[in-house]
Amino acid sequence: MSRPARYDILFEPVRIGPVTAKNRFFQVPHCNGMGRAFPSSMAAMRGVKAEGGWGVVVTEQCDVHHSGNHLRELRLWDEQDIPHLARAAEAIHRHGALAGIELAHNGFHVANLESRTVPIAPSLRPTRGIAPVTARAMDKDDIRAARRWHRTAALNARRAGFDIIYVYAGHDMSLPVHFLSRRHNHRTDEYGGSLANRARFLRELIEDAKEAVGDTCAVAVRFGVDELMGPRGIGAEDEGREVVEMLADLPDLWDVNLSNFDNDGQTSRFAAEGFQAAYVKFVKSVTTKPVVGVGRFTSPDTMAAMVHGGTLDLIGAARPSIADPFLPRKIEEGRFDDLRECIGCNICVAGDKAGVPMRCTQNPTMGEEWRRGWHPEYIPPKDTDDTVLVVGAGPAGLEAARALGQRGYEVLLAERTRELGGRVTLESRLPGLGEWARVRDWRLTQLRRMRNVQIAQDNEITADMVLDAGFSLVAVATGAAWRADGMGRVHSEPLSGLGAVPVLTPDDIMAGCLPAGRVVVFDDDHYYMGGVLAERLAAHGCEVTFVTPEPLVSAFTQFTAEHKRVQRRVMEVCADVLPTTALVRLEPEAAVLACTYTGRERTVAADAVVLVTGMVPRDDLYRDLRAHGEQALAAAGIRRVVRVGDCLGPGIIAAAVHSGHLFARTLDTALTDETPYRRENVELRPERPLPLLGADPRATR
Amino acid sequence: MSRPARYDILFEPVRIGPVTAKNRFFQVPHCNGMGRAFPSSMAAMRGVKAEGGWGVVVTEQCDVHHSGNHLRELRLWDEQDIPHLARAAEAIHRHGALAGIELAHNGFHVANLESRTVPIAPSLRPTRGIAPVTARAMDKDDIRAARRWHRTAALNARRAGFDIIYVYAGHDMSLPVHFLSRRHNHRTDEYGGSLANRARFLRELIEDAKEAVGDTCAVAVRFGVDELMGPRGIGAEDEGREVVEMLADLPDLWDVNLSNFDNDGQTSRFAAEGFQAAYVKFVKSVTTKPVVGVGRFTSPDTMAAMVHGGTLDLIGAARPSIADPFLPRKIEEGRFDDLRECIGCNICVAGDKAGVPMRCTQNPTMGEEWRRGWHPEYIPPKDTDDTVLVVGAGPAGLEAARALGQRGYEVLLAERTRELGGRVTLESRLPGLGEWARVRDWRLTQLRRMRNVQIAQDNEITADMVLDAGFSLVAVATGAAWRADGMGRVHSEPLSGLGAVPVLTPDDIMAGCLPAGRVVVFDDDHYYMGGVLAERLAAHGCEVTFVTPEPLVSAFTQFTAEHKRVQRRVMEVCADVLPTTALVRLEPEAAVLACTYTGRERTVAADAVVLVTGMVPRDDLYRDLRAHGEQALAAAGIRRVVRVGDCLGPGIIAAAVHSGHLFARTLDTALTDETPYRRENVELRPERPLPLLGADPRATR
Repeated sequence: MSRPARYDILFEPVRIGPVTAKNRFFQVPHCNGMGRAFPSSMAAMRGVKAEGGWGVVVTEQCDVHHSGNHLRELRLWDEQDIPHLARAAEAIHRHGALAGIELAHNGFHVANLESRTVPIAPSLRPTRGIAPVTARAMDKDDIRAARRWHRTAALNARRAGFDIIYVYAGHDMSLPVHFLSRRHNHRTDEYGGSLANRARFLRELIEDAKEAVGDTCAVAVRFGVDELMGPRGIGAEDEGREVVEMLADLPDLWDVNLSNFDNDGQTSRFAAEGFQAAYVKFVKSVTTKPVVGVGRFTSPDTMAAMVHGGTLDLIGAARPSIADPFLPRKIEEGRFDDLRECIGCNICVAGDKAGVPMRCTQNPTMGEEWRRGWHPEYIPPKDTDDTVLVVGAGPAGLEAARALGQRGYEVLLAERTRELGGRVTLESRLPGLGEWARVRDWRLTQLRRMRNVQIAQDNEITADMVLDAGFSLVAVATGAAWRADGMGRVHSEPLSGLGAVPVLTPDDIMAGCLPAGRVVVFDDDHYYMGGVLAERLAAHGCEVTFVTPEPLVSAFTQFTAEHKRVQRRVMEVCADVLPTTALVRLEPEAAVLACTYTGRERTVAADAVVLVTGMVPRDDLYRDLRAHGEQALAAAGIRRVVRVGDCLGPGIIAAAVHSGHLFARTLDTALTDETPYRRENVELRPERPLPLLGADPRATR
Repeated sequence: MSRPARYDILFEPVRIGPVTAKNRFFQVPHCNGMGRAFPSSMAAMRGVKAEGGWGVVVTEQCDVHHSGNHLRELRLWDEQDIPHLARAAEAIHRHGALAGIELAHNGFHVANLESRTVPIAPSLRPTRGIAPVTARAMDKDDIRAARRWHRTAALNARRAGFDIIYVYAGHDMSLPVHFLSRRHNHRTDEYGGSLANRARFLRELIEDAKEAVGDTCAVAVRFGVDELMGPRGIGAEDEGREVVEMLADLPDLWDVNLSNFDNDGQTSRFAAEGFQAAYVKFVKSVTTKPVVGVGRFTSPDTMAAMVHGGTLDLIGAARPSIADPFLPRKIEEGRFDDLRECIGCNICVAGDKAGVPMRCTQNPTMGEEWRRGWHPEYIPPKDTDDTVLVVGAGPAGLEAARALGQRGYEVLLAERTRELGGRVTLESRLPGLGEWARVRDWRLTQLRRMRNVQIAQDNEITADMVLDAGFSLVAVATGAAWRADGMGRVHSEPLSGLGAVPVLTPDDIMAGCLPAGRVVVFDDDHYYMGGVLAERLAAHGCEVTFVTPEPLVSAFTQFTAEHKRVQRRVMEVCADVLPTTALVRLEPEAAVLACTYTGRERTVAADAVVLVTGMVPRDDLYRDLRAHGEQALAAAGIRRVVRVGDCLGPGIIAAAVHSGHLFARTLDTALTDETPYRRENVELRPERPLPLLGADPRATR
């Protein structure tokens, strides 16, 4: 394939201060859950992005000092941290990309629980979150010191090999933006009051960085131009614009977005591709320096339009570069069908928030680059003579068949229903989840090109059929069913009173079986399903009472940075929302609820109850096959039967895709005694025993 | 001092299988936030316990396999992890203690977010917490494998040098207890059904461990004899007792407690010393093996009574060993006034839950043993000619004066009021916080022995007095005041309508100024204060409406493992509890509240409002002194004026004590450019670059 000329503009080099990006693809800083705890994993992941054609690859945020002590991200407190960062810079350079680093001091955003240092801020205030810690107001010595820490970190970052040094003023998460904010800055000296005063610290950091490293490194500023909070915050039509005007050509690059991360990283449930363009478009009109912005760009046409239309110079991406690290290269080579588009689910963000290497629904190799040696594009060719039957064309089955096909195996993918995609197809029809169909669509596009993979729809497979079919490996990827008995986290036995009120499961509703009237949704699952079904039912005209034992609606969506929007929406569409409440039993036309703290009960009228409490694998086929015994299987030429995806362990779509991929790589999904990946351990430094009490002649009591 | 003979029993050796503990002081396994991320810190901390006289020192829990993937604790997945654990064993042995290790597989308690392995359990169920992950039911192969992992880990633990190998069946957190539980085990094979069947897996793990390492190592079982949940759980009068009867003499040691940790680790707000004795007392009557139990023991008389009375053979301690690692040695030497008793606040637990090295309110050196080289008993003697004025005898001032006194400095500790202890004294009079007075009492006992420290009560110090006083160092430890303007996390400006309703702060209430009638408590602080004041006001007869923008009452008490009890109590005593709600303005006799999600407002009648939103340092003296200028200070012989504790950064009592101690060690509390402690970095292992796409001739697409 060749690339249409209209995309050529994306491959023009862009000068950024003293350095030049080879093209307009710019992987902006993003967290990944690896940070200081998994430095080799992080470096390998960034290297893969560079290999995939991104002209610039930037790290996540990096603390400059122990008084801004983020617990998960990178650290460049002093020279001791250079080798860890140098590894990332080297991995990025190996593929001809520029390496950037986002230096940051998190001010009152962090509570310094590790360093135990009193946090600092422009003005006194409690730290963010709920830790009982107050940030003190910085005096002039502190401001001078903070400038010095940033400057030292810039020098050390250059020593580590970075080409672009960020000053981080984004996401309401760092000192410069805390100084900028009227909410946070109540100072009466030259660092407070007027916007020029409030911008003074940011200006100084930029000037300091340019003075320190600007001869060879570009100095970038990351700035959230709009906080989407009206007059209480920075807005693109007032102070957001004024800040850019004020500092217009001082930095070498503007990296602009919506502050805070809940806005910048909105899921596809709440925002479409390019959603930030209207806010950031003004930036190019007030600076001559290159501008990078984001908006979950996956369409080359949209990207080209961003440049042609004068909105952006560089196409920023975080999530799209996670879902497809090779996105630039595929566009360059005109391989548009190969683009694996981000679905905007933010499960990547959840990895970071949980402090583990992030995963990706679309890209099962994400986070596995170093530890398992998985590459997003390359996979070893087949090394056995197996032929493989994959039963079930949901996310696990599709990915297993695709990756096995890529390896060159002969594969039959059999699906019981007429539709492919399994739960992905069903869930993508729920409110806000349309883009999730990309999980299916990308895989089908790949599969349909493979001569060695056959797809058989409308084809229910029984154990007898398997025994006759002559495949040596059988992967049962038949998914899971939502349970109708109420068992889950709260209930370890079936709900009392089943039968007194009609009960529906998410499967029923996705199959089009919708109740009417007063419906109680009991969410003991806590990710998206309960909330999305409440929306669906409300749109259908039901009067919905949403009941959850958690204190929050769809509590796990805190990890995907969408909880506030989710809870607001569910509260808006439901007749009632009852947190910290469990459904305890059903009675005729009624649901009995109990407070999870006091046990106090109340009864609500219910024409139907929807139970979102847990899933049970649909593993009949697996059990039937195992029941035949090893000998019968061997006699049928079957050397292994495995469960894959939800059929093994019901969970999220990302886990199902990963499970399918793991099977394709290893031809098994059973537990191994050996750890199946390399891990990163803390270095043991030479011991310096503490002084022995009494042994030390100076000991005092 | 010499030790009364009635305590001699505590220093008898105790045989535990093939090993012998030198005395009855047994540091049971406890988390500490160090684990795999801070192995040198953990080893040094354990070593200090051994030095302090504990006969046995045990690690926190240690994963045996990647399918039980706790994110924070120790790991012994294979040989690679041995050196990290060996460091702890060596540190413990250096002081003549036995080293124990708590091997564990967390089953469905963990979601394996890092390893991405499907979790396992006796029966299918969602994992604990809110991660969207389901644990699958183990088949016989899995059970055999889990036994093998435990056995291998036991062998590796012995290689690392441990003397006591635990099988962990406590806290509803591990596979053996999941098998034991009727709630979690619905199996129909020989591992389910009868208690004998449900105990089979635990029995096998004990037998396997004894077979593998029992010739040289003791095999201990940690078991929660009562879950405090009635017939749904294990109880000391039914299955808890039957399990011990069934396995009576199989392990070499029984370590018994209350499951889960919220019960085992109750704060002093909810349970007194020895609170577990009634539950565990039966154990010794059904086994001939030694029994260790806990109960926040700090009184030598209680300890001796536990042994004399036949309740325990070994005095278990976690929190008391954190507050005073030298507790056994002090008892041994008859130094009873030196015992630094745990206050039962569980701020140690909060460190673990936050994933940072734990701290301790009573022991500021906790977690600093390795990284700063701080010892809990030894402190370097003075190395300057300074004389020190400490202003304010709250927790920071008391600790600063005490530690400076220990170093040999001449110190004057001046206190404005007639009472010593500052906030500690005031807060210890609030409901449930009485034991917190120990922070004051221990320090006063120490101080009153020091000839080089003078205490001047009822003595308000002004800047002029300081300039005349002739001290070379001045530490301003004057604390902080609760603010009355409503500013805090929600409000960055003073609350609208102040004056329309009488407003009180926690300081007012602690000073005895109590409102009457309908009182709205607005808690934007989220630790204990709001909830404790609600209790205080309700006891006074007020009709309390508790308002918090967080979804939970006293949300931070989740980190101190007391949230459920706190929220239940506050719900019981208050007329109404309104989570996810902010106080937005005051009107005559009314408070206007708004939902934090939708902004929907409601008005509640209020005769008074209590604002628990934030603290402001009482730093007038500091600012007055600084206003005199460096020259005037130098002329007065003052070389440095610093703020200490809440006056520097308002926070928790533990932070104030730490700040005072830091000042005593370093004579300063200002930020340093250099990181003031050693840190633990991840080892960079040799690079193995991923296959280059295209460069590999086998590459397939």
